[in-house]
Order: sequence, then structure tokens, then C-alpha cells
Amino acid sequence: MQAALDLARSGQGHVEPNPMVGCVIVRDGCVVGQGFHGQFGGPHAEVAAIRSLANPADARGATAYVTLEPCCHFGKTPPCADALIEVGVGRVVVAMEDPFDQVSGGGIAKLRAAGIEVTVGTRCAEAGDLNAPFLKRVQSGLPWVIAKWAMTIDGRIATVGGESQWITGASSRAEVHRLRGRVDAIVVGMGTVVADDPTLTARPAGPRAADRVVYCRNRLPSLDSNLVRTAKDHRLILVVGPEIDRQSLDQVRAAGAEIMPVDAVDLAAMARAGIQAIGESGATNVMLEGGSELLGSFFLASLIDECHVYVGAKAFGGAAAPGPVGGIGVAEIAQATNFKLRAMDQFDDDVRLIYRRFAD
Amino acid sequence: MQAALDLARSGQGHVEPNPMVGCVIVRDGCVVGQGFHGQFGGPHAEVAAIRSLANPADARGATAYVTLEPCCHFGKTPPCADALIEVGVGRVVVAMEDPFDQVSGGGIAKLRAAGIEVTVGTRCAEAGDLNAPFLKRVQSGLPWVIAKWAMTIDGRIATVGGESQWITGASSRAEVHRLRGRVDAIVVGMGTVVADDPTLTARPAGPRAADRVVYCRNRLPSLDSNLVRTAKDHRLILVVGPEIDRQSLDQVRAAGAEIMPVDAVDLAAMARAGIQAIGESGATNVMLEGGSELLGSFFLASLIDECHVYVGAKAFGGAAAPGPVGGIGVAEIAQATNFKLRAMDQFDDDVRLIYRRFAD
Ligand SMILES: NC(=O)c1ccc[n+]([C@@H]2O[C@H](COP(=O)([O-])OP(=O)(O)OC[C@H]3O[C@@H](n4cnc5c(N)ncnc54)[C@H](OP(=O)(O)O)[C@@H]3O)[C@@H](O)[C@H]2O)c1
Ligand SMILES: NC(=O)c1ccc[n+]([C@@H]2O[C@H](COP(=O)([O-])OP(=O)(O)OC[C@H]3O[C@@H](n4cnc5c(N)ncnc54)[C@H](OP(=O)(O)O)[C@@H]3O)[C@@H](O)[C@H]2O)c1
Repeated sequence: MQAALDLARSGQGHVEPNPMVGCVIVRDGCVVGQGFHGQFGGPHAEVAAIRSLANPADARGATAYVTLEPCCHFGKTPPCADALIEVGVGRVVVAMEDPFDQVSGGGIAKLRAAGIEVTVGTRCAEAGDLNAPFLKRVQSGLPWVIAKWAMTIDGRIATVGGESQWITGASSRAEVHRLRGRVDAIVVGMGTVVADDPTLTARPAGPRAADRVVYCRNRLPSLDSNLVRTAKDHRLILVVGPEIDRQSLDQVRAAGAEIMPVDAVDLAAMARAGIQAIGESGATNVMLEGGSELLGSFFLASLIDECHVYVGAKAFGGAAAPGPVGGIGVAEIAQATNFKLRAMDQFDDDVRLIYRRFAD
Repeated sequence: MQAALDLARSGQGHVEPNPMVGCVIVRDGCVVGQGFHGQFGGPHAEVAAIRSLANPADARGATAYVTLEPCCHFGKTPPCADALIEVGVGRVVVAMEDPFDQVSGGGIAKLRAAGIEVTVGTRCAEAGDLNAPFLKRVQSGLPWVIAKWAMTIDGRIATVGGESQWITGASSRAEVHRLRGRVDAIVVGMGTVVADDPTLTARPAGPRAADRVVYCRNRLPSLDSNLVRTAKDHRLILVVGPEIDRQSLDQVRAAGAEIMPVDAVDLAAMARAGIQAIGESGATNVMLEGGSELLGSFFLASLIDECHVYVGAKAFGGAAAPGPVGGIGVAEIAQATNFKLRAMDQFDDDVRLIYRRFAD
């Protein structure tokens, strides 16, 4: 199952909104076939594993380890449960059920009805972990929200003079571009657009081209901003509140930006309404790239699932220098958002800490 | 030499203000003796290694690897160069010269004069690194200053409501107590005394009992503060400026506090004058435990050599929540203090990052 989980991970950034799935077929203690879901619309893991067999007869009586329940419905491809039945595997070990409406235990039932022994729950926690974004979307309709920021060792994202480029080095920034190329949407606030005039594309391009999203309550990006200038090549979505000026809106729309209106005025409610709309548009993974007011409103609305904290090896100091998460914050530690540390990596002298929200 | 460096480290916290030193004696490719300087006033590494020989004759013609130049003066113990000559080693490999006035090449000269082959500079960078605090004190008279703080993943040391206990968990805090038991002085500002009423002792006690130092410009710790109440059991030093009230000063002195007057009024100048005085009183390692105004003044005065940053797995948010390093800060990134990442450790869900100032 470990091997199947490792294989599954290879699909990251390629298969969303589908889950990552891996499959290993074992006969007489030897791996005879293996595969993973490698491309949205492409063959599922079970089919890839079956195709990898030197001889189809090798599957007869073998055990298939799959990281997610085999599907039982016709989607972009025929049902995997049928494929496993057809090659005659004797046993299927499944890490976890697929909560997707059209599967949800149906694949397991189908296998059992065909006389195949099925074990469910092996390495379930790890499998759930791997596909947490997929599971969240299927269960709540909301995408998985990753907040990313770069700060100094004393927790600042800019000096008191407003300088922020660069806090981290080239290899950290390359890693951020790698993540940009694997998410469905990249989100910033208007303050960051005005301060940094970012383009928010992945350079080099990754397996997917993320939509670029700007939260705008009162202001809109100017027509000569990098975001609007590139709007015809890379999708640009503006989440706008009811108070925005209509005429400017027409101008940015004419320049290629799409408008996602939300009917809320306070920042936390706008944060939630916008994320809901981004989820409905099909996004599984969304990355927030700041600034601090945007992140503050997302924390306030309890919308953040994962944080990628880059710590650059310098100190700015200054009581007035901004931190990564602004807004009103929490007054008591009991109200703080709690996380589990997931990974700790070094990029030259920078450190990247990955956290996932602690489900309490 | 690697083995000698590892041995040397065992003396940490026990030998200061002496340097940590390790010695390995090798004959015909086999280690025949080894030792380290284990206690201030106790035998030096070379003598410990000689005493560890199964038979003193084993040293005849052998090679001694020493992490620091053997001494040539009578201090608390007789010169180690003489001891090595006496047992008849054929060769001595020294990682680095000892810059201490009474040695400074004299030990090497003495060995060579006795016909022993001496190689200097093997693993010199690592040896210098190990004894950076000792080398700094000998070369500049100033102690090695370690700033330690605990912050959230969003760089806050307290909520907007002022709550700060606890940001990190029990194992991180135990690690801080371990460090407290190995340094010569622990320093805080008056704000921290008022907010947290700390005791600043190592619990459990370590190999040394650090002096507790409070920087006071206008205010003094109250007579019923934990620091003053324990002043007769654990040394308490108050660094006070010229503006302090004389009558209150007499009261805390009567309660057992020692007064270290400095003739400066701005915080950065007071920071420097106080550290100089602490260095003159014999301290090699000093740990700053905050708060942010104190750390801000020390950063401003370029007094910080090493940072121990504990990151607790929670987020507070809040534009008004304090960060670890306050004061006026730097306006441009070019003026920021740069560090090298030295270590990255995990304590449950907390992370400790150790940095040393980048010598530019
Ligand atoms: N180091 C890093 O990782 C990093 C990353 C990004 C930015 N930064 C720095 O952060 C600074 C900008 O931060 P900031 O706090 O001023 O800007 P920001 O959060 O990017 O933008 C704030 C503005 O965005 C809009 N906004 C934010 N959240 C919203 C919500 N939930 N709903 C609707 N609108 C929302 C509002 O726009 P309106 O003005 O239209 O009301 C708000 O005034 C810059 O200095 C930038 O360089 C650093
Ligand atoms: N998370 C952590 O690691 C941590 C650690 C420590 C403290 N804290 C928190 O930090 C907060 C306290 O921070 P703070 O910035 O208010 O207090 P602070 O830095 O502890 O104290 C500031 C005061 O100390 C004196 N002082 C500081 N630097 C000085 C210098 N160079 N020379 C002379 N005097 C100096 C001044 O005293 P006068 O008032 O006499 O002028 C100044 O007003 C508390 O909430 C505490 O809980 C957190």
C-alpha cells in the first residue's frame, strides 16, 4: 500500500479535480503490475496497473492494492471495478472509500458481489491525507485553501519602509513557482496588486495554469497593471463586492478580466463568498499569496487549510513593520487557529514550514 | 579531528569562560587515548587524553589531534604543551591557534622547539565555530549574545489582547530551560518583567546558574516581583540608566539586587554599555529572552550573534499583535541583519531554528 500511495502522488497537479490514486498488483509476493492516475481524463490507476502486466493472466488470483475505492460508474473512462473483475483478481485491498456521490461504497459492493475478497481501511489516514483537497471539495463544495507567505526570522513581510523584495532566495522562489503550476487558482488582495504589481503566473509553467484571482472591495487593478495586461493570455478573475464602481468594472471587463460578484461587504464574509464561488467554478486547490489584510480576513473566516511559511534568514525589526496575517486577529490564545506541522525543508538559508489546520 | 571536535562539545556549559577542547591520541592507526576539557579548573583535554592511556608508553611517537592549540602557560593547571612533550608524542595536529594572549602561538612554538612535528589548521572552520563565543570574548571583550524568542507561524509573540502563554509546548520550553542552564546570563527588559513576572531560573538546574539581568531605563522591578524575591538565592543584576530614581534603587539593592549603572540614555547605547559591563564581569554566553523593545534595541546596536527562533504551530493574526523584534527597525532590506541557518529541529509540533549572524 505504501508503494501505491507513493505512485498516487505522481499525479499531483495533473489529475485534479480527480483524486490522486495509485494501484499495485501483487502475486505470490511479487509486484506484477503497477500504475497511477496520471492525467485528468486519462486511464485510472487500476487500468494503468492492468495495462502494465507482462501477461494479463498474471492478475488471475492476485491481490490489487488501491489507495481509493475503485469506481463503479461510467465517467470519462469505464468503471475500474469491472476491469478488476474482468482480469480475475482474487482480492482487493482498498485504503479508503470514495465519498464521491456516484461511488460511495458502490465499487466495493460490486467487487464483493463478483466474489472478490475486499479489505477496506489499510493506511486509511495516509490516503485521506493525500487526497484531503479532493475529499474537502466532494464533502463541502469548498476548495482546499493554502496560504503561502515569506517572512523574516522576526515575522515581518516588509520593512517599516515597505520594502519586501526579496525576503527569500532564488531557490525558495522557484519552489513557489512549482506550487503555482499545480494549483487551480492563485489569490491576492488589491493591496498586493498596488504594492507589487505581480503577474502571478508560474515560471516555468507547470502542469496546470492557475486562474489569477484578486479580491477587490473598493479598488480595481489599473488597466496597465501586469495582471490586466496579461488577462487575455491567463485567466484573471476579480472578486468584487457590491460597492465597486460600475464604470471601472466595464473597463477591466473589456480588457479581458472576468468578474465574480459577491453579495457581502465585510471582508470575512467576502472571503467566504468568493471562495465558495471559486469552488463552484471547479477549483480543488487554491493558493493565497497575500497580503496581510487578505490573509487576516481568511483566517477570521476559518478558511485556511494549509500554510506554507517561508522563513528568510534576515531580521528587519520595527514595531511598525507588517506581519503576514493582519486584520483584527484573535484576542485570546484559546481562539487561535491551531496547526499540525507537516514538513520542514531547507532551501539554501531559507526554511519552508508546511502546516495543516488541526481538526479540532 | 572529527572525534576530537565531538569530544570537545561535551564540555559545553561546564568549562566557560574556558574554550571547549577535545584531544584524541592515535598510534599506528588506532585510538589509544582521548579526553576533553570537562570542567572549568579541571584537567585540559590533552591531560585527560594522556591519563586515559592504558600505558603511558603508548603515546611515544603517536599523533595527538587537538581542537585548539595546547597551552604554554601556568593557569589553573600546568601547560599542556609540556605534558605532550613529556609523554613523547611524535606529531601534534592542531585545528586552530588559541588567540588568548598568554598562548597565541606560544604552545605551537614550544612543541616545535621540542622537535615535535606540528600541523595547524585541520578543520579550523569547525573548531572556530565550536568556540565562537570564547573567541569573541577573547578578541573583543564582548560576550556571545543569543536572542531567543517564541512566536506563532505568523510571527507574533502575543495576541492583540496581550496573551502570550503559551505559544510553544512543553518540550520546547524544556529545551529553553536546558539552554538557560548553560549560559552565563539571561537578559530581559522591564516590559517583560511587568507583563510576565518571570523567575528566569533553569528548571531543572543545569551545569551553571546564570545571572539574571534586567534592563531598566525608567522603571525598576517591584519588591514583590519573582526576580527580586529570589535575589538572595540567584544573582539579579539591574542595568540602570542615569535617569533612574535613586530611592527605589536603594530599596531593590537592599532586597539583594546588584546595580550595574550605565552612562547612556538611548536604548541602543544602553544595550551596548550593558553588554560590555556583562562581558567585563566574565560572561561568555548571554541569552536575551525579550521582549520586543529589548530585542529591537539590541538589533539596532548590532549586538546579536545567534538567534534561537521557536515557532509554535498556531496563528494569532492581527495587524496590532506584537512581533518579536520591535523598536524602530530598518527601512531598507539592504540594512537588515543577515543570518546563516545553523539548525532546524522539531519539538512536537514546534520548530526551533538556530541562526548565526552572517559575518559580512
Ligand atoms: N512576503 C510576502 O509573502 C507577501 C505576499 C504578498 C504581499 N506582501 C506585501 O504585503 C503588502 C500588501 O498587504 P496589504 O495587507 O496592504 O494588502 P492585501 O491584503 O493584498 O490587500 C488589501 C486589500 O485587498 C482587498 N481585500 C483583502 N481581503 C479582502 C476580502 N476578504 N474581501 C474583499 N476585499 C479584500 C481590499 O481591497 P480594497 O482596497 O479594494 O478594499 C483590501 O484593502 C505589500 O507590501 C506586499 O509587498 C508580502
Ligand atoms: N514570546 C516570547 O518569546 C516573549 C518573550 C519575552 C516577552 N514576551 C512578551 O513581550 C511583551 C513585553 O515586550 P515589551 O517590548 O513591552 O518589553 P521589553 O522589551 O521586555 O521591555 C521594554 C522596557 O525594557 C527596558 N529596556 C528595553 N531595552 C532597553 C535597553 N536597551 N536599555 C534600557 N532599557 C531597556 C525599558 O524599560 P523602562 O520602561 O524602564 O524604560 C523598556 O521600556 C510581553 O507581552 C511579554 O509577554 C514574549
